[in-house]
Amino acid sequence: MAARPLAIHVRRAHPGDAEAIMAAFSTPRAMAGTLQLPYPSAELWRKRIADQGPEDFLLVAEVKGQVVGNLGLHPAGRARRRHAASVGMSVRDDFQNRGVGTALLRAALDVADHWLNYVRLELTVYTDNVPALALYRKFGFVVEGTLVGYAYRNGRYVDTYTMARLRPAPEMPASGTTEAKQQTQRKATKTTRKRTTT
Amino acid sequence: MAARPLAIHVRRAHPGDAEAIMAAFSTPRAMAGTLQLPYPSAELWRKRIADQGPEDFLLVAEVKGQVVGNLGLHPAGRARRRHAASVGMSVRDDFQNRGVGTALLRAALDVADHWLNYVRLELTVYTDNVPALALYRKFGFVVEGTLVGYAYRNGRYVDTYTMARLRPAPEMPASGTTEAKQQTQRKATKTTRKRTTT
Repeated sequence: MAARPLAIHVRRAHPGDAEAIMAAFSTPRAMAGTLQLPYPSAELWRKRIADQGPEDFLLVAEVKGQVVGNLGLHPAGRARRRHAASVGMSVRDDFQNRGVGTALLRAALDVADHWLNYVRLELTVYTDNVPALALYRKFGFVVEGTLVGYAYRNGRYVDTYTMARLRPAPEMPASGTTEAKQQTQRKATKTTRKRTTT
Repeated sequence: MAARPLAIHVRRAHPGDAEAIMAAFSTPRAMAGTLQLPYPSAELWRKRIADQGPEDFLLVAEVKGQVVGNLGLHPAGRARRRHAASVGMSVRDDFQNRGVGTALLRAALDVADHWLNYVRLELTVYTDNVPALALYRKFGFVVEGTLVGYAYRNGRYVDTYTMARLRPAPEMPASGTTEAKQQTQRKATKTTRKRTTT
């Protein structure tokens, strides 16, 4: 029998979430699957949440008022990389494979696509993290390369995939000045009229 | 006739080099081949050089007392990426293909391998930057992936290769205590003696 779907609420993190994020990273898979360290510090997380820039989005997923996952969406660089952002996320071990990652990533992609206008999103994922890889693929990320020995995890160097999700750049409305726009509209109206009369 | 080989001197950058670095990045290929911007600022470079961390290495190549190229070697991350560093470099347009890049990269790899003990070096290079690609390959970098539309350059999104150079982790001297070492040596000597007598 499949578990009943969870009611998941995604919102922006606030410094008061530091303890819950620390608790999530105290679960071994959540920690190992990222670049986090054993014995996480609530104080470090409080500082990290407080120090976010205006274009950093640190989101958390709540289930029954409890924070069980988090996601960061951050500018990938300045100026010549302004179109790109990086994504990192994690779900507490006992809530994995229950839709939390999907809810977090869906929320982040909505912001990235519809408000921040990123056309390239990037992430790295350990090559053996099969559920995460499936999640990213579901949302259109593709593997661009394999980074050998990218990180140290539980006593050994391990590989990651570097993945990206590309979005076509949106179109600028066709005409420049308001006058030009009105002319285009008038023309369009005429054409429509013509069509309806034939 | 091949140009006479240049006498190239590599040293650490100091804030007084800011003007020369700005001048190098005022040449179009040097600028375009990196993530730098048009109209570079000496003041920004002065700040960047002054603000380096203790494990950042910003090197310059001098020819006849003139700075004509620069290279940055920086930690790739903290803790679980402590074994990795990233490299970025650039040569003034009129000094390209004359050994400046080779001198800079050789100096940086010597520091990285023999003093900082990095086992993974990373860089990105535009896929159409053939001379740079050849330089990196010469020093053992291999392409790990192609990052589509990674950066914006002269009016369009362009791809980069992500490259890495791996080095085997060095061995720790075999035995622990000095006592244990001496025992091992005594044993080795005995074995040798035995062999020589048979």
